[in-house]
Amino acid sequence: MNDMLEHEQPLFDEKVVETAIEQEDISTFRQEFLSFLPYDRMQFFAKQPKEVRLEIYNYLSPQEMAEVFQHLEQEDIPMYVDEMSPFFVADMLADMYADDAVDILNQLRKEQVASLLTIMDVQAAREIKELLYYEEHTAGSLMTTEFIAINENQTVRSAMYILKKEAPEAETIYYIYVTNRYKQLVGVVSLRDLIVSDDDTMISEIVNDRIVTVSVEEDQEDVARKMRHYDFLALPVVDYQHHLLGIITVDDVMDVMEEEASEDYSKLAAVSETERTDDNPFVAARKRLPWLIILLFLGMCSATLIGKFEATLEQVAILAVFIPLIAGMAGNTGTQALAVVVRSIATGEMDTEQKRKLVFREAGTGLITGAVCGVLVTGIVFVWHGHLFLGILVGISILTTLAIATLAGAVVPLLMHRFNIDPAVASGPFITTINDMISILVYFGLATAFMSYLI
Amino acid sequence: MNDMLEHEQPLFDEKVVETAIEQEDISTFRQEFLSFLPYDRMQFFAKQPKEVRLEIYNYLSPQEMAEVFQHLEQEDIPMYVDEMSPFFVADMLADMYADDAVDILNQLRKEQVASLLTIMDVQAAREIKELLYYEEHTAGSLMTTEFIAINENQTVRSAMYILKKEAPEAETIYYIYVTNRYKQLVGVVSLRDLIVSDDDTMISEIVNDRIVTVSVEEDQEDVARKMRHYDFLALPVVDYQHHLLGIITVDDVMDVMEEEASEDYSKLAAVSETERTDDNPFVAARKRLPWLIILLFLGMCSATLIGKFEATLEQVAILAVFIPLIAGMAGNTGTQALAVVVRSIATGEMDTEQKRKLVFREAGTGLITGAVCGVLVTGIVFVWHGHLFLGILVGISILTTLAIATLAGAVVPLLMHRFNIDPAVASGPFITTINDMISILVYFGLATAFMSYLI
Repeated sequence: MNDMLEHEQPLFDEKVVETAIEQEDISTFRQEFLSFLPYDRMQFFAKQPKEVRLEIYNYLSPQEMAEVFQHLEQEDIPMYVDEMSPFFVADMLADMYADDAVDILNQLRKEQVASLLTIMDVQAAREIKELLYYEEHTAGSLMTTEFIAINENQTVRSAMYILKKEAPEAETIYYIYVTNRYKQLVGVVSLRDLIVSDDDTMISEIVNDRIVTVSVEEDQEDVARKMRHYDFLALPVVDYQHHLLGIITVDDVMDVMEEEASEDYSKLAAVSETERTDDNPFVAARKRLPWLIILLFLGMCSATLIGKFEATLEQVAILAVFIPLIAGMAGNTGTQALAVVVRSIATGEMDTEQKRKLVFREAGTGLITGAVCGVLVTGIVFVWHGHLFLGILVGISILTTLAIATLAGAVVPLLMHRFNIDPAVASGPFITTINDMISILVYFGLATAFMSYLI
Repeated sequence: MNDMLEHEQPLFDEKVVETAIEQEDISTFRQEFLSFLPYDRMQFFAKQPKEVRLEIYNYLSPQEMAEVFQHLEQEDIPMYVDEMSPFFVADMLADMYADDAVDILNQLRKEQVASLLTIMDVQAAREIKELLYYEEHTAGSLMTTEFIAINENQTVRSAMYILKKEAPEAETIYYIYVTNRYKQLVGVVSLRDLIVSDDDTMISEIVNDRIVTVSVEEDQEDVARKMRHYDFLALPVVDYQHHLLGIITVDDVMDVMEEEASEDYSKLAAVSETERTDDNPFVAARKRLPWLIILLFLGMCSATLIGKFEATLEQVAILAVFIPLIAGMAGNTGTQALAVVVRSIATGEMDTEQKRKLVFREAGTGLITGAVCGVLVTGIVFVWHGHLFLGILVGISILTTLAIATLAGAVVPLLMHRFNIDPAVASGPFITTINDMISILVYFGLATAFMSYLI
């Protein structure tokens, strides 16, 4: 579908650009390359071998290179920066929106950042330094200071005039923020409002003072949620005295949403979200092994646990047959409960009361699913082994473990959230391994207790 | 953080509204309630008991109710609609942007939709019917027909005039699309371009003809990806002859991103994404049981598999001790590989060559992680059981199963994607259970083969 579309009306012709580079035909290169959309320029640039990239740096101005850089994969930034002259980089960063420049600098070494800021245009460097203070994943780290602010005592005409003047600098011109003389945010006017009202209207007449703001320290996930709920194209960022510090635009929020989603997803599967498909096997293995080794030791614990019941096993070997079934089911229900809870924490619908409710809900759900699966298993085992008591034993074990496992899957992430640990860390495999042990304890505990009926 | 902020500068006072309703003081209710932002109106509305909701329907106009409805949880829509008079609903839908009206209608029964469309304003009904044709999850189902289109043979001044006139109707006024006399899309002008260029400029001079479009049948995930990459606030939707059919705005795309993310996440954990935290235990259980029962039967298969090795088990009961460890590790690596592949399919970075590479990569990763964990386990078992051969046996089993499981975790979703099955369906638990069986086969196969060394 997608490709076909591209094929129908090609947005650009890479061949032409490549040959232009080979023939060092700068003018053709610039004409063609600059006609690409910024994202496509990045795509082309990222595909090139180092020697070609080095040429491209010479063919483009820092301003032009800035547009390419804004779309590059974060992880690749340091490599590219090291290929370029510091002065070129400094000019490039100075020309970016402050928030994008900060994203780039966050990928570089401390001393590199320091030296870049010293050789950079003073005004730009000041703006960037302000933003560098803010912790990553906070509203402050997402915001840009290139916004348009006016005061309310003027007409639509004069506002439009300011707009025209500041448009080239501002990251968005679709919201104009109204501040008082203390630079505190008092309202917002959308460009839409300006367009539809006639030139002599006073801003104070059309200003909207029901403003949704985000605090500079607010978590980026909360920022994304607000943006999604209220359908704004930008949100103003304020401090505790309600001074307007900057704005966060919707394009940055979309990147945050993507980032947070892969993060939760990766953690549920116990993979590092830094892993990339083009990592080589050794890099990938190095990123996965820490998780696997922890899980390995947890697994040894459940092995030790079973070891304690070796005597039981020697008498009734058939018990072993159902270990993976029971452990597996415990793991599955646990993961289900975990996912539901983590997801609802992430989408932020929970107060304490709701959490309490949810825990009881999961307890109930566990009992119900446990009962159904328990009865089912008892039946199957009876029919298939003709051994009723074994069936009942496995059935009861399933009932009990499912009930406990489901509860555990819900409670663990909630507790972690309570203690400000990212609940997504309680990834599927962890819950699974913990529930393995619970299930083994229950299963063999029951088996040992009622041994006499089994032999 | 968030709450504190709300507390600092409350956007509205729910108490006032509630008392106004109790005292049937309509004017106060309207004044206060309508001063909320639409999303907050929805929040308030959704919290109310039925009798209060029934009053609210009487206090608000269909137009005002429309704003509330646009933000409601999809699943609740039918309940609310049944509480309202069909004529009220029809007026309300007619007043919404066509795409939002379609989202609502998609939640209702066929006959309900039909009757609503017949009593609805004809013009609105026509627009809605057009959109109803498109399959869910396609660009067509996301788009709205309320866009602004002009032709290039006019000045900025006249364009601004059209803009002012159509602004109240259009869903976005920040992009103006340029079409030829066949209604084919030839370019786009952003309001930003209009603002900064002077009134007598011809549109043809400032029009941008490098347009990123989406095809009307394109999957919503691809639409979201394009929007995120190119940082547009809206994307034009075209048919194969490149006629402009509608536009998709960024706010709808953010909802799509959220929806797709929870969907992948839920599937990885084998929960239905329709499950909600406020479902009661029975509803939740009903939604989870289908998955669990399938997994139960898969589990019985692995049980049967072990059953085949009962003889081996009776001779060497201790073998059972390591079943959960080996099965667990196989499940974990499988899930890791699965997550990496599904994620990279979702973010759409893969051509056939890259897929081939990825499979080899995973094979390599599996061998490396397998080797490391294998050696580790051999050591632990030897130290802890003093039984070297048992250690080697478990170690080799881990090596083999991790290698196979990792590969399986990567290949399965790729194959599903190849055959146009959503790879996310190959959820963690499935891969886990499949890998359980593989691991059991390997482990007991080896054990039986080298039995003599074990006793």
